[in-house]
Amino acid sequence: MSLDGTYDDGNIFAKILRGEAPAARVFEDDHVFAFMDVFPQARGHTLVIPKHSQARNLLDEEPAVLTQVILGVQRVARAVRAALKPDGLVVTQFNGATAGQTVYHLHFHIIPRWEGVELGRHAAGGMADPTELKALAAEIAAQIA
Amino acid sequence: MSLDGTYDDGNIFAKILRGEAPAARVFEDDHVFAFMDVFPQARGHTLVIPKHSQARNLLDEEPAVLTQVILGVQRVARAVRAALKPDGLVVTQFNGATAGQTVYHLHFHIIPRWEGVELGRHAAGGMADPTELKALAAEIAAQIA
Repeated sequence: MSLDGTYDDGNIFAKILRGEAPAARVFEDDHVFAFMDVFPQARGHTLVIPKHSQARNLLDEEPAVLTQVILGVQRVARAVRAALKPDGLVVTQFNGATAGQTVYHLHFHIIPRWEGVELGRHAAGGMADPTELKALAAEIAAQIA
Repeated sequence: MSLDGTYDDGNIFAKILRGEAPAARVFEDDHVFAFMDVFPQARGHTLVIPKHSQARNLLDEEPAVLTQVILGVQRVARAVRAALKPDGLVVTQFNGATAGQTVYHLHFHIIPRWEGVELGRHAAGGMADPTELKALAAEIAAQIA
């Protein structure tokens, strides 16, 4: 999919927001929903998405929604750091398939990094164990400030 | 450098903001400054930074500043797209050396992607030609809306 196109509300994140698909929830407020990536590139890989949005990517998003999303990213990133004590944190956001985007609902990745630990390739290891993801989500959720 | 630490205003981006170091400027408003990365990972690799900030990274930033920065990222990303017509765009932000951070002033990378073109490794190809960067900056600046 290119950068052009219209929002398709059959995407998996829209289904999660409607409660039609499961997710290991970390945090939610009026504006954003945060949950564990089921294809983690590192332990603690978390996603933050807008709850009320029909934007496929950052380019298409309403500015007022985008500012709420980045505040959610900051809040969740701080909690990931407090919970998992990584050496670093990557925040990344893909626009278009060529950039690595696979789900066409705006989302930010928060990926903890540890010295000497390479990033896993997205989806290469298959889906993470849901029970482990729930435990991680609870650890991070406990640190939301 | 770990995620901890204090802001050092001798960093290269602080110098650019004070006019003590050159940069191929793309855009500037009251809140943000955008310029070409001198070690581009792809043609059109642009950086967006807050002008009034003593934050090393996203975790440390004032929420009111962070929201202005992401609005600047969106505005510049749209201009990069309009100017260079990439197939995709990566937006990324590193926190800590382990995550790939090399300058300790909050910054977002906007990296255009083209189908079949691999990303270059940061700094591996040496510094880009300043004249080329200025021409690219002008192309992108002309598309700021």
